[in-house]
Amino acid sequence: MAIPTDPETGEFVRSANHFDARITADGSSGWPVEPGRYRLVVSRACPWASRGLVVRRLLGLEDAVSLAVADPIQDERSWRFTLDPGAVDPVLGIEFLSEAYYAADPDYDGGISVPAVVDVPSGELVTNDYPQITLDLSTEWGAYHRDGAPDLYPQRHRGEIDEINRQVYADVNAAVYEAGFASKQAAYDDAYSRLFARLDALEKRLATRRYLVGETITEADIRLFTTLVRFDPVYHGHFKCNRNKLAEMPVLWAYARDLFQTPGFGDTVDFDHIKRHYYQVHDGINPTRIVPNGPDLSLWATPHHREELGGRPFGEGTAPGPPPSAEVLPAQW
Amino acid sequence: MAIPTDPETGEFVRSANHFDARITADGSSGWPVEPGRYRLVVSRACPWASRGLVVRRLLGLEDAVSLAVADPIQDERSWRFTLDPGAVDPVLGIEFLSEAYYAADPDYDGGISVPAVVDVPSGELVTNDYPQITLDLSTEWGAYHRDGAPDLYPQRHRGEIDEINRQVYADVNAAVYEAGFASKQAAYDDAYSRLFARLDALEKRLATRRYLVGETITEADIRLFTTLVRFDPVYHGHFKCNRNKLAEMPVLWAYARDLFQTPGFGDTVDFDHIKRHYYQVHDGINPTRIVPNGPDLSLWATPHHREELGGRPFGEGTAPGPPPSAEVLPAQW
Repeated sequence: MAIPTDPETGEFVRSANHFDARITADGSSGWPVEPGRYRLVVSRACPWASRGLVVRRLLGLEDAVSLAVADPIQDERSWRFTLDPGAVDPVLGIEFLSEAYYAADPDYDGGISVPAVVDVPSGELVTNDYPQITLDLSTEWGAYHRDGAPDLYPQRHRGEIDEINRQVYADVNAAVYEAGFASKQAAYDDAYSRLFARLDALEKRLATRRYLVGETITEADIRLFTTLVRFDPVYHGHFKCNRNKLAEMPVLWAYARDLFQTPGFGDTVDFDHIKRHYYQVHDGINPTRIVPNGPDLSLWATPHHREELGGRPFGEGTAPGPPPSAEVLPAQW
Repeated sequence: MAIPTDPETGEFVRSANHFDARITADGSSGWPVEPGRYRLVVSRACPWASRGLVVRRLLGLEDAVSLAVADPIQDERSWRFTLDPGAVDPVLGIEFLSEAYYAADPDYDGGISVPAVVDVPSGELVTNDYPQITLDLSTEWGAYHRDGAPDLYPQRHRGEIDEINRQVYADVNAAVYEAGFASKQAAYDDAYSRLFARLDALEKRLATRRYLVGETITEADIRLFTTLVRFDPVYHGHFKCNRNKLAEMPVLWAYARDLFQTPGFGDTVDFDHIKRHYYQVHDGINPTRIVPNGPDLSLWATPHHREELGGRPFGEGTAPGPPPSAEVLPAQW
């Protein structure tokens, strides 16, 4: 995979999300909420897509919004459904996610990214605007949430959640990529500094509170989690984010394990997809495409003792049940 | 740098040491021990060369055997003296170590490696046979050892030292390279398994004894040390030896810090040379040539509590004094 960087600064250039339609409860956007109509296409390797996997599980939207899981290894035509029988998504009937992009815009020539929400009747991509996708699952799909679903974006905390999300996006979610994909030392150094300064601040913030905002799990925790769960398996080595491992930051490591062990988080994580994707697709930074055997993933199951901080993971709600049988993952270690 | 691997198995192929003459006390080899006559050429980046740096310091041979330090970044003509004024070694009067190789054998077409011992009067390479170089500094140069020099290869322990050295060579010193330079997954997997099985065995062995053999520092400790000191800065990430960091193996990490903090060990270690060499020279596995900023090296100075195990680092002898002023390294963190 060619990694686009600025020739002057060596900074990684992330492509914009081109399709930003919203699916709304009132249908005013032209895309009304309707169970069974939309298909969420993800890669379990991808941290941006994995936000959607967690939110969909926590809210119990598995029946309302179906799921397509792409092969973690893209080819030159990008994400593909080679994990499915016949290498075709059984619902959309396509081999490549790009087909849904072109169905929506035959002239599209940008990147093909996950998560993507596709309108099943027309086969057209509705949105790949990942920050909005999860918020809309919380706020527009309420009529189809499970009994006991948590409020992941509570009205009274939105200002604080949005602010944390901005910080975590710039200095954690995106910074790990900016470190790993930098083509010049100064660009790497800048991303590395921002990343660890922010992780230090989060280590402090989370020392006395179980979750980032309020006393329940919110969208802010989900966005931090999907980067933290990839930290030691890929970002520490592959992306050179190596001041220390996550496992060497006691508060963040316990926080990440707490979430991992919460139904709806760890049961969406496929470390095999994660490791193979990063190490085999980014041959610009790993030309041998060899996938490291470490680290020891069984540590994710060790006690975290975060209950002692109090907090109510699901607020007035309850934990989700197990994943649908078709979505149960193999043992991870 | 092109990394030679077996096209069939993907295994790294290490080049042989071509020059294996010995410098002997009785002169029977044609190369008699003689203070001031030989120059030890090293890179402080290189674990094989660094054995010689430690042994020379512990034995107090700094005046008897002079030192040339090559630039950690080789160019297409290999090791060069670009750290010296005019980019020329002030004693040998050469720009490239290869000149000493060709002086010894004009038809030589093998690799150029450190450590190398060069005969100053003729400018000819005597030996690049690193396992023998350190043993001969111990056993042939006794007349020039400092007062209080330890016996690093005590007669009564040689069988045990040789056996440990064989294990540590195959499964630690060489295995990290075999993991990092493998071009196929199976070759990597094999090296990784051997490495961590051996580190686990060493973790157990060193839990109750301060040093590997007997109760004093020996050649065996030096050979293990030069790999361990590079483990977290380079082998863990760059060579994918990532089951865990050295810092996550409490016994080996304390053992390595104990040695690092012993005069003659840490004062030979230049982490800047180490990191720049590995990450910038091996562009076959790190095409961006970006050098990671981590890990936090100041942890090497933290207490290790290994004194509680007893042992006498230098046996009947004493610690060496500080390095000669010309060899004092800049602060390492």
